[in-house]
Amino acid sequence: MINQHYLDMLGHKSVIRELSEYATARGKEIGYENVFDYSLGNPSVPTPEDFTAAAKNLLDTMDPVQLHGYSPSLGLPDVKEKLAASLARRFSIPYTPELIFPTSGCAGAIAHALRAVTEPGQDVLVFAPFFPEYGPYIGETGARMRIVPAKYPDFQINFDALEEMLNENTAAVLINSPNNPSGVVYSEETLTRLAELLSAKSKAFGHHIFLISDEPYREIAFDHKTVPYPASFYQDTLTCYSFSKSLSVPGERIGYVAVNPGCEGADVLVPMLGQISRGIGHNCPSSLIQRAVAEVADETSDLSVYETNRNLLYDTFVELGFTVPRPGGTFYLIPKALEESAEAFCKKAMKYDLIFVPCEGFHAPGYFRVAYCIATEKVKRSLPVIREFVEKEYPNR
Amino acid sequence: MINQHYLDMLGHKSVIRELSEYATARGKEIGYENVFDYSLGNPSVPTPEDFTAAAKNLLDTMDPVQLHGYSPSLGLPDVKEKLAASLARRFSIPYTPELIFPTSGCAGAIAHALRAVTEPGQDVLVFAPFFPEYGPYIGETGARMRIVPAKYPDFQINFDALEEMLNENTAAVLINSPNNPSGVVYSEETLTRLAELLSAKSKAFGHHIFLISDEPYREIAFDHKTVPYPASFYQDTLTCYSFSKSLSVPGERIGYVAVNPGCEGADVLVPMLGQISRGIGHNCPSSLIQRAVAEVADETSDLSVYETNRNLLYDTFVELGFTVPRPGGTFYLIPKALEESAEAFCKKAMKYDLIFVPCEGFHAPGYFRVAYCIATEKVKRSLPVIREFVEKEYPNR
Repeated sequence: MINQHYLDMLGHKSVIRELSEYATARGKEIGYENVFDYSLGNPSVPTPEDFTAAAKNLLDTMDPVQLHGYSPSLGLPDVKEKLAASLARRFSIPYTPELIFPTSGCAGAIAHALRAVTEPGQDVLVFAPFFPEYGPYIGETGARMRIVPAKYPDFQINFDALEEMLNENTAAVLINSPNNPSGVVYSEETLTRLAELLSAKSKAFGHHIFLISDEPYREIAFDHKTVPYPASFYQDTLTCYSFSKSLSVPGERIGYVAVNPGCEGADVLVPMLGQISRGIGHNCPSSLIQRAVAEVADETSDLSVYETNRNLLYDTFVELGFTVPRPGGTFYLIPKALEESAEAFCKKAMKYDLIFVPCEGFHAPGYFRVAYCIATEKVKRSLPVIREFVEKEYPNR
Repeated sequence: MINQHYLDMLGHKSVIRELSEYATARGKEIGYENVFDYSLGNPSVPTPEDFTAAAKNLLDTMDPVQLHGYSPSLGLPDVKEKLAASLARRFSIPYTPELIFPTSGCAGAIAHALRAVTEPGQDVLVFAPFFPEYGPYIGETGARMRIVPAKYPDFQINFDALEEMLNENTAAVLINSPNNPSGVVYSEETLTRLAELLSAKSKAFGHHIFLISDEPYREIAFDHKTVPYPASFYQDTLTCYSFSKSLSVPGERIGYVAVNPGCEGADVLVPMLGQISRGIGHNCPSSLIQRAVAEVADETSDLSVYETNRNLLYDTFVELGFTVPRPGGTFYLIPKALEESAEAFCKKAMKYDLIFVPCEGFHAPGYFRVAYCIATEKVKRSLPVIREFVEKEYPNR
């Protein structure tokens, strides 16, 4: 029988994808350089030359039978060794290879981590605003997603709401800092308070509440700051990482779950992730790609363009009178729309070939997302257009 | 909470993996060249030079932002185009790109296909002997695996048993030709009869029974024959393919589901596979690897070594008095052990540094698997050892 559940899912179209398709179609009419497409979170800078060189070197020098042979189900040992060493060095946490599980990007990491630390029917708390795909990631495990409302205007954590929502049925809490869509980075103060609250509630409820930390934007930090590392604040943390953004290789589907050495179940979690893989047919990322990223685990693309773009856009939106949280990282920002419906706002912007994404799907209604992973030259050309759009459409703002 | 179900799965160790680990450890003692390791199905011949050249050429010439950018959730259009054209040309079925869904090898393909055409609680029929991972592939969907007993001695389909087991609760039938572990290829006669039976039963039960065809060994065919293509016999077929064996790239995790154009739900199945991916965090195979295999979709490694090895081993086992179905493909054969317990038989063989896999896990009790994807030189050296083992341990066979 055609499965009814997956058939029903077809009805729900992605707003981001629809806008991106519109932008591509419009680009064919007027030239893509004239469409200010701020819809998609696809990195705009090339991968480091060292990544390309590492991949080519593997293809040139390694025995192909070994290079392309099966990866053990828990990942290639030498790759895990390098990733663990890099994390241990950077974050002063004694990760070992046994605590690293290579995955198909952050999507794979989160899907695996969720299954390992929840039982069907239990709650996973997420914080608005959040990446809409959290819905299927959580829903398909059989757990229940509950949404902690946003804290305005700084988009840190709404602790009053969180405290009220944590209960005996809470299995895990899923955070994302730096955040898609807001660009906001959780402060050390926020993470300290979160850890204290989760520790207290774990004790009160008699079971460990796990922290799943979704960190694909960890290396895109602005203002000469580094992003506070959640696992340093709370032991029961599964860190979900992707090289998609740091190395500009989202199509290569490569990331990992890193289990904090002090985490409840640290000795069984990675083998369990391997078991989860068996049933969903995941069976490790590409062995060539695993090896290539391990060679450049401490490098990044030249990410400076995102900060340059952030500055140009943030300043413009503020100057035009928008309420907008200042991004500490990522390549996103979310200004508040100038009318109640962000959807109506974004529709008006399209007349100016400005493609923004209304944030209803991110559970930040009234806000819109600007994905500024595009060339700075284009950002600059877009600024007078944004100004014109706002001044014409919202003269009395 | 640590998920109890996945925790419980940890107890079940893979016999194949244990034997392979033993062989590696033993190899460290006496030199791996002296261990006749017939345990693992890892291709022993290199990938074609054209595959390596295609990957390097992509790295050299394509814009890295485009090369490593996100693949659309249903796969890269130009890759799907090439794969569909290759299949259409070879099998005279009008596949289009919309009917192709790139996956992480056959494991990913089967896991996706099963979810698309079953409802939890429905039956999926498999045929002994079969790859033990079918257990978790099917079990984790919520469907129920039912095992059609083997047909001895030719390991075609036991139609009497199949007909009895097909009922209103049957969602799909999963076949694997050429077969792991037997090496047997389903004949045209078998596939014709299977198609007729499934059509009749679909009609009788008022719903389409899907055929999921697991074909990673399709290109490893012996005796100048080609393998009959199941989708040519039955319209409601989802073909699950992997390049692991044909291109010797099992670690690259690349394959596809091809939906027969005449299949029930052909217009929605691939989009549904995309939805299934969302929840399990699969999100397409590596874009570099997708593109590289598409360039060489009609090529294979030099697979002739497997036929050479089959001849040497099959003739020896027959000469020594074993009952053994003649493999028409793959790099496996399964002789019947010379005592009731194949496990006991294989344990005795280990004393001679012959590593065979008892087939209890494949649901062919009393048989053992010989994976002859090793160098012919080593196969030749193993023959007198096999002879010595059999003559000493089973003098009165």
